[in-house]
Amino acid sequence: MTATAQDINLEAFFKISYGLYIVSAGNSSKKSGYISNAVFQVTAEPAQFAVCCSKNNYTASLINENRSFSISVLKRDAAQSLISTFGYKSGKDTDKFSSIKYTTGITGAPIVTEYSLAWFECRLTQTIDVGTHLLFTAEIVNTCLIEDGEPLTYSYYREERKGKAPKNAPTYIDPDKNNEQKSDSEKYKCLLCGHIYDPAEGDPEGRIAPGTDFKDLPESWQCPVCGADKGSFDRV
Amino acid sequence: MTATAQDINLEAFFKISYGLYIVSAGNSSKKSGYISNAVFQVTAEPAQFAVCCSKNNYTASLINENRSFSISVLKRDAAQSLISTFGYKSGKDTDKFSSIKYTTGITGAPIVTEYSLAWFECRLTQTIDVGTHLLFTAEIVNTCLIEDGEPLTYSYYREERKGKAPKNAPTYIDPDKNNEQKSDSEKYKCLLCGHIYDPAEGDPEGRIAPGTDFKDLPESWQCPVCGADKGSFDRV
Repeated sequence: MTATAQDINLEAFFKISYGLYIVSAGNSSKKSGYISNAVFQVTAEPAQFAVCCSKNNYTASLINENRSFSISVLKRDAAQSLISTFGYKSGKDTDKFSSIKYTTGITGAPIVTEYSLAWFECRLTQTIDVGTHLLFTAEIVNTCLIEDGEPLTYSYYREERKGKAPKNAPTYIDPDKNNEQKSDSEKYKCLLCGHIYDPAEGDPEGRIAPGTDFKDLPESWQCPVCGADKGSFDRV
Repeated sequence: MTATAQDINLEAFFKISYGLYIVSAGNSSKKSGYISNAVFQVTAEPAQFAVCCSKNNYTASLINENRSFSISVLKRDAAQSLISTFGYKSGKDTDKFSSIKYTTGITGAPIVTEYSLAWFECRLTQTIDVGTHLLFTAEIVNTCLIEDGEPLTYSYYREERKGKAPKNAPTYIDPDKNNEQKSDSEKYKCLLCGHIYDPAEGDPEGRIAPGTDFKDLPESWQCPVCGADKGSFDRV
């Protein structure tokens, strides 16, 4: 038995507390990372974490290939540009590490140190298929507390910084599915850079004709200013 | 390669953000629940959660037997007595539901509604052995938002309410192991009820002789006032 739409109260999901992290993997030639809110400790002896990653994330394949990854705990004031790079772009197309501070761990995994309070380096113990995503469990081989301070939480990001989940996040909510009854011929704002999509103008550079509703933009369409995907826009 | 003590900075672990939940399982004749901070969503379609549970928790066997469980999101001001009952006592010995508000879900699982903002009822999809603990993944079959408000987070519980992780929590830190160099002939305070254990007095009712250091109390020893276990005490 699967829950139907009326069984699921989306507001209830916002009562789950999460931090925001960058999970990175790779080696000297290929590296990537993604923004994750799905990180928790699963055992104390030995210390192990579990993280959840979309099968579509390039980092997922790098974790399985290299059998290691790192978790960087973001500071509350982490720059939006860092979150945007790791949360809304694919590491297949972009070198996410080209202009940020990072170090390399004893496993060879890259570890983001920019805007990070602490990090954990982990060696993969299990990969579990949970459908659209993979759960990775991993033993901690090294930790670092860079500085004390407040970690960025998902509720703070959502409520104070008006951010939303990247499309590949397990907590992503498709705005089209939850607003089916509303008219869609309205302006949408990019939550990352503030760019407004106006259907009356379309997006000439992205070959989108004037008069195209936001909901009719192709799934591959990206914000012409910052590259964020459709899921990063909210109706204004 | 396993991390050695010097690789592990315990302060780094406190930068991971968690909520606090009651995870419950059972049926009309047997039910139990435990306090968990290890809850996250793993997929959106279908909506699935993962929770982590000590193999020593009675609830773990009830989840596997009944193949369902519920997650109640605790309010920030949840009564310490509720946290104490679900976090520091075993459901084998106590009917944790005898004096609290709960409902029964469509799977038969008990769902704690007292001091809860929201709940999720879940049907088990996978049980994954991660060592001392089990990871359960489960599909959400029903949700309820009881009221809006601030959820209790682990950092709030630890910093503002001075609580600590139950002994079976994945994030539990053994105070004896982390203070090996310190003398132990000192008083200890129960973080749940405030009772002071004084080695000079011992615990006559618990058959502990005067002059017994806290570290020499048996692992089965409990706070004579509220029943919390040794792990719930901190040096004063």
